[in-house]
Amino acid sequence: MAKLPHVVIVGAGFGGLAATRGLRRVDVDVTIVDRNNYHLFQPLLYQVASGLLDPSAIASPVRTIVRRSPNVDVLRAEVTGVDLAQRRVITSAETLDYDYLVIASGSETDYFGNEDARQRSTGLKDLSEALGLRSQLLGCFERATLTADADARRRLLTFAVVGAGPTGVEYSGAVAELIKHVLPKDYRRIDFTEVSVVLIEAGDRVLATFAPRLGRLAERSLQRKGVRIILGRSVRGVDDQGIVLDSGERVETSTVVWTAGVRATTPLDLEGDALARSRRVKVTPELNLSSHPEVFVIGDAAAFEQAGAVLPMLAPVAIQGGKYVGKAIAARLKAQESPPFHYHDKGTMATVGRGAAVAQIGPIHIDGLVGWFIWIFVHLLYLVGFRNRALALWSWAWNYFFWDRPVRLIISASDDR
Amino acid sequence: MAKLPHVVIVGAGFGGLAATRGLRRVDVDVTIVDRNNYHLFQPLLYQVASGLLDPSAIASPVRTIVRRSPNVDVLRAEVTGVDLAQRRVITSAETLDYDYLVIASGSETDYFGNEDARQRSTGLKDLSEALGLRSQLLGCFERATLTADADARRRLLTFAVVGAGPTGVEYSGAVAELIKHVLPKDYRRIDFTEVSVVLIEAGDRVLATFAPRLGRLAERSLQRKGVRIILGRSVRGVDDQGIVLDSGERVETSTVVWTAGVRATTPLDLEGDALARSRRVKVTPELNLSSHPEVFVIGDAAAFEQAGAVLPMLAPVAIQGGKYVGKAIAARLKAQESPPFHYHDKGTMATVGRGAAVAQIGPIHIDGLVGWFIWIFVHLLYLVGFRNRALALWSWAWNYFFWDRPVRLIISASDDR
Repeated sequence: MAKLPHVVIVGAGFGGLAATRGLRRVDVDVTIVDRNNYHLFQPLLYQVASGLLDPSAIASPVRTIVRRSPNVDVLRAEVTGVDLAQRRVITSAETLDYDYLVIASGSETDYFGNEDARQRSTGLKDLSEALGLRSQLLGCFERATLTADADARRRLLTFAVVGAGPTGVEYSGAVAELIKHVLPKDYRRIDFTEVSVVLIEAGDRVLATFAPRLGRLAERSLQRKGVRIILGRSVRGVDDQGIVLDSGERVETSTVVWTAGVRATTPLDLEGDALARSRRVKVTPELNLSSHPEVFVIGDAAAFEQAGAVLPMLAPVAIQGGKYVGKAIAARLKAQESPPFHYHDKGTMATVGRGAAVAQIGPIHIDGLVGWFIWIFVHLLYLVGFRNRALALWSWAWNYFFWDRPVRLIISASDDR
Repeated sequence: MAKLPHVVIVGAGFGGLAATRGLRRVDVDVTIVDRNNYHLFQPLLYQVASGLLDPSAIASPVRTIVRRSPNVDVLRAEVTGVDLAQRRVITSAETLDYDYLVIASGSETDYFGNEDARQRSTGLKDLSEALGLRSQLLGCFERATLTADADARRRLLTFAVVGAGPTGVEYSGAVAELIKHVLPKDYRRIDFTEVSVVLIEAGDRVLATFAPRLGRLAERSLQRKGVRIILGRSVRGVDDQGIVLDSGERVETSTVVWTAGVRATTPLDLEGDALARSRRVKVTPELNLSSHPEVFVIGDAAAFEQAGAVLPMLAPVAIQGGKYVGKAIAARLKAQESPPFHYHDKGTMATVGRGAAVAQIGPIHIDGLVGWFIWIFVHLLYLVGFRNRALALWSWAWNYFFWDRPVRLIISASDDR
């Protein structure tokens, strides 16, 4: 049997999995490489961080997801570099030769060079951070019960979230609900007027990528839950006592969650002109590196311009990119041309807690309970695997009816692996 | 208001929680101290280790469990010592004065002084070990897919369990099922004839505390699942290549799970005559230290003799001890005598995989599917909290009908806290 063309896919996120699926019936051998053995449903990560979902509800083993694709091999390894000239991917485990390469390596938290912020705050991009945050928040409450010094106690009980994009809004809303409805039953010694959630945003409104009306609705909804919102202030520094804003004002806190920015992360050794804003890789209309048409870059890692704007870092962009790449590679094998990539915007949404979400589907803007049900429906639709869907739905229903956040275990650094 | 007598309970296991519950309507202030913020349902720990259950299905926050006991305070801290003369408990957080002290601090893995074994094997006593084992086992399969050397690969794919008590039997059965029914679908590159589970027992039969017939049934059931059972051999040493038995025979393996022994662990500074076998604390018929009637010791930590034998380290012993202590303290406050503690044996059971368990209830011996349903019923009965019960039942049903082990995430040491 002749050796089939080898496609290496870097990253088992939304983009990488969509590309894998797209290549299922194509005559190629596929190797998908990821440092984790699981696909992570990142949009729900904040629910793990706020104690609503178990890690396994939003993470599925990659091998299980690709079980029915006989041409796919899974490699759990860190990709450390790409040799474009030799067409090789270098990983921590082995070196892979490729005929086609799909870079779907996603993004990481961007602290914009603020080293203090990086060291003293937590991002919300992977399971480790989400579980760390869960323990950190509950640990603060435990320590607060033992702290007589009122200032120290208030610092422990103030939770600051930097960045009011969807992640910052969703996480601060979830934490505010946890504090309002669940924790008072467990921490009777704590005076809950000392507890607060502060959301800090450099821009002049929350959810800047949504229509202004939806942003205002989200803002009001968060305020009703008790979230203090500081707009138009950026973070100058973070120290042991908390945050210093550019106005000089301080927010005294022991917990800083950083959702203010993300930047692409790829194993490609590119600099300068090859990169766009947020270190995303510039690509051709066919999602290729212009110098290497056998290399595709999709999702957060790619800067794809459409209608004068670069596509946002969202799961649907990555998924559509992955599907496109599957078709493009199939076409190339038959020496056919493929049309340029085109992203179909199916709308964006964000939830602001129990029974409230905002959704924007083209000209249609939806909010409140209807928005929330749409949000649940869409997220369940995308959640990988039936078990995860059922588990997540169960947890949501539980939370909705009992105002509970069931997963509140503090497990130390070496635990719960 | 006069200050109420203060009862300090060390440990939020079965015994500590039962004592707390027993004191709910007694005029005392209770502080329950545990290093973790959760109660762990230890009998199901092996199911977390084998990827069937999520940690949160067998762990519940202590604060949530005691919510409805207004006289109970929870302290998450390590108990570092007890000053019996001054009636003080010293913890990593604060020092607690007590009028009554309940030591329910449980047990830890006993390597019988075998330092090699301690360093190179994993116990199965806490969440951290169970999750570590889950990652270790899956990590071995990942590495095996990349290993060309047949000896190294077979070592990675051999899983050794030392000790054929209930934990060793249950865990090896669960791993054998995982290997037989689930992993072949995920690891298609692996030759499963190279995979094996080895159960090593120094005694001459498995489940030595059960009737011989039930032990034989369990043995045969494990063998049918492919577990290799080595009886009458103890472990002389553990090195990088695996286990050396006292016969000189080697078991080449990268994974050693140690369930061969447990010993009591208490913050009491006792030695010599005060301790019985397995470092359990000798107690009076009223579960007290003879020198300090205000100090109770219960569960695994205590050596209580009844009908010529010391009670086993089992959850029901701890639970009945805790209930007794609650009543004994109430009686003392009214200057009444309490009758000596008496343990009612309600039977023991062990599961040996999907649809098979052995149960021994006095003279009645049950096995097979009926045993398994009794096992499920009893465990659900004891599982703390409705959500946990429902989640565990869901997972079991899933496993039963789909032969699946849903939780198969490899999360590194610093993750999944």
